[in-house]
Amino acid sequence: MKKTAHNGILNGLMRHPVCTSTIPTSPCADNTINPIRGLVDNLVINPNPDKPFLRLSIGDPSVFGNFDPPPQVIKAVADNLTTSCYGYVPAHGLVSTRSAIAKYYNTASSPLTSNDVFVTSGCSDALRIAMDCLGSEKRNILLPKPGFSLYQTIAGNRGIPVKFYDLDPENNWSIDLNQLESLIDENTAAILVTNPSNPCGSAFSVQHQRDILAVAEKHGLPLIADEIYQDMVYDGESKSFGELSEHVPVLSCCGLAKRWLIPGWRVGWLIAHDRHNRLSKVRDGLTKLCQVIIGANVLIQGAVPQILETVPQSFYDDTLKRLKSASEVVYSELKDCPQLRPFKPQGAMYMMVQLKIDQFEDIGDDMEFVEKLITEQSVFPLPANIFGIPNYVRLMLTVPEDILREACQRIVEFCDQHKAAVPRKISRIEVAP
Amino acid sequence: MKKTAHNGILNGLMRHPVCTSTIPTSPCADNTINPIRGLVDNLVINPNPDKPFLRLSIGDPSVFGNFDPPPQVIKAVADNLTTSCYGYVPAHGLVSTRSAIAKYYNTASSPLTSNDVFVTSGCSDALRIAMDCLGSEKRNILLPKPGFSLYQTIAGNRGIPVKFYDLDPENNWSIDLNQLESLIDENTAAILVTNPSNPCGSAFSVQHQRDILAVAEKHGLPLIADEIYQDMVYDGESKSFGELSEHVPVLSCCGLAKRWLIPGWRVGWLIAHDRHNRLSKVRDGLTKLCQVIIGANVLIQGAVPQILETVPQSFYDDTLKRLKSASEVVYSELKDCPQLRPFKPQGAMYMMVQLKIDQFEDIGDDMEFVEKLITEQSVFPLPANIFGIPNYVRLMLTVPEDILREACQRIVEFCDQHKAAVPRKISRIEVAP
Repeated sequence: MKKTAHNGILNGLMRHPVCTSTIPTSPCADNTINPIRGLVDNLVINPNPDKPFLRLSIGDPSVFGNFDPPPQVIKAVADNLTTSCYGYVPAHGLVSTRSAIAKYYNTASSPLTSNDVFVTSGCSDALRIAMDCLGSEKRNILLPKPGFSLYQTIAGNRGIPVKFYDLDPENNWSIDLNQLESLIDENTAAILVTNPSNPCGSAFSVQHQRDILAVAEKHGLPLIADEIYQDMVYDGESKSFGELSEHVPVLSCCGLAKRWLIPGWRVGWLIAHDRHNRLSKVRDGLTKLCQVIIGANVLIQGAVPQILETVPQSFYDDTLKRLKSASEVVYSELKDCPQLRPFKPQGAMYMMVQLKIDQFEDIGDDMEFVEKLITEQSVFPLPANIFGIPNYVRLMLTVPEDILREACQRIVEFCDQHKAAVPRKISRIEVAP
Repeated sequence: MKKTAHNGILNGLMRHPVCTSTIPTSPCADNTINPIRGLVDNLVINPNPDKPFLRLSIGDPSVFGNFDPPPQVIKAVADNLTTSCYGYVPAHGLVSTRSAIAKYYNTASSPLTSNDVFVTSGCSDALRIAMDCLGSEKRNILLPKPGFSLYQTIAGNRGIPVKFYDLDPENNWSIDLNQLESLIDENTAAILVTNPSNPCGSAFSVQHQRDILAVAEKHGLPLIADEIYQDMVYDGESKSFGELSEHVPVLSCCGLAKRWLIPGWRVGWLIAHDRHNRLSKVRDGLTKLCQVIIGANVLIQGAVPQILETVPQSFYDDTLKRLKSASEVVYSELKDCPQLRPFKPQGAMYMMVQLKIDQFEDIGDDMEFVEKLITEQSVFPLPANIFGIPNYVRLMLTVPEDILREACQRIVEFCDQHKAAVPRKISRIEVAP
């Protein structure tokens, strides 16, 4: 009986033409947009075949082999490889890993336990669970401009409306707090801050961090703090927002990618700083959001306690010393070029260079600058349009010094070849799309 | 001027009371629900202190140490550890890894290239990108019942409506195709199938696979095939839906978790079987969805080519032989128990056992059966309510034989102690919530 009915269905099929139409995609897929891709895909990249191609564009310290992870990281993973658990662990992380991270970031003012830590598949996954937990189609999140483009990818994926607050290059890339506050409305779910900054290479003063917290506190908003470059400040103190915050709940996102130099190994963490127990619902939500992909890989996360215990301070110090030295090389090479204005970085791995567009004869914006620079000089900095600010380029500082010098000298030569006889009249610097 | 205005804001703050309210969460976080948790959290687990606690509940082959990954997997990762790329790779995977996977699954009827493969953070992430790419709040997905609970977690996370089609225990857990077809409407985005099945331990016949494809073809729908247990069929042939499909686009989700026995290391893949180029938009969507978490960890995915090349066939054969043997042990121990009806598995790692509830004196359903079994006999099978079907329990087969026998004997003893003098009248077997 059943079988007959079913055969009827399949016989019925014979009368149907085969469907050949394209399978449609969801709005979620359509709106998961990485702004870098659109711009880089449209960039004409034709290096000069007579000159070695020097890429200063990729935010990946592993590219040149001069910023390898410390041997203690490799040893910790190798040790864990034979004694490892191969199986499932709690989706938000092994207790031993969460305890080690809590201990590492614990401060007198913001004491932490394993319950405050969520292990994630890289810092990007920490940002995903933070934004997905707080934002929604009806609840907006404030983002920095210029800022890391992944924030927009995650927001687009989830349909979270975003508004951009400006970082002021004339004021050490600090936040224009008046403007920040003007963007807050009754549907604002959180303020996202990045410190130290990608792409700016800047670090907020502790006073500025306190001022940002005061704005969040006034409006009862939590902070999502992208602190993947935490403790990567060249000089002076480096405090996390969680340590400084008295009343504002802070979801701090971090991981092994930058300070431990293994971005591809995808272990990050989210730390909930929550001195007044305002994140009870959020903790439950973060735990649930970790379950969608069942967490970070156990081999690497299982090695985290040993990594945090054994990597010596001298390794971190050396990394910062070399990054600072690289920034000084670039600064000294570019500072006297009339068409450029390099900004000395204070942390992270990047340096922003402003293009004085009116000083060029035949270059309209940063995209054209980069295209022509690649074509003529085979040097590739990243146009900062990608980060939402026009007429800057971002240089990566983990490049070996000889390559950095060579790249800078070619950039200076390029600027000289394209300099305007008299400054062009430009009504207004173009606004980034 | 700016500074004054800003100080004004901060001074203004002094008049505001400190916000102490709980930070709200998004609908996305609220709706990311793992149905296992709710049920297991409510389960009373008080093992009998006089008997060792035997857990047959967890779907993780690594728990007892008798199903460790092959040495070739450990060697491949160890080799990759020293020569590894530490940095970012394309979010949908290394070309070398994608090529190796394409080559491994290539068949004459469904030729594959690296462009058909998306490397993901475990099979769960492959299921995430597949469901997120096709489903949406307006486009439903059909799911098997009983079925793996993660499908509902992902659907809840994205707000995708789901409808359940039944697997028929009286017909080798095959799909009731009439009912399946009756669930399809103009908003159906895809049919999700699992083969071999978790929790049923069943495997579809090739003819049944073709019949399922015919229904999908008739309605122009793609298939999401959870094939994490592919090639884990004890006897007879095992074909993927992609290999069998002539016209239906198939998104096959798989990974290292089960066949290579490293579920915690989180490398999976999605293979797009697409002989008539109907997935052009979907491929672009999948690529973008991989970028949200920037892909799977490079250390493990980089070892995949060596793993696929070096693990000998004898390893896979041995795993299946031992799983089959375990299933025979359980079947022979339980088959004569009047209160139970064990179902012989054909693949995967699980065995379903029906509880003849009317044959028990004082047990109302599978949840009560499991609670009392734990309390009295310290044996923990998983109540199949969790998978959407009432009055079954799922036993894990990767448990060492002596423990399996001991557990079965205790289950039989338990059944005897709770048997009804005469069968109880039960109007109708309760429907799972």
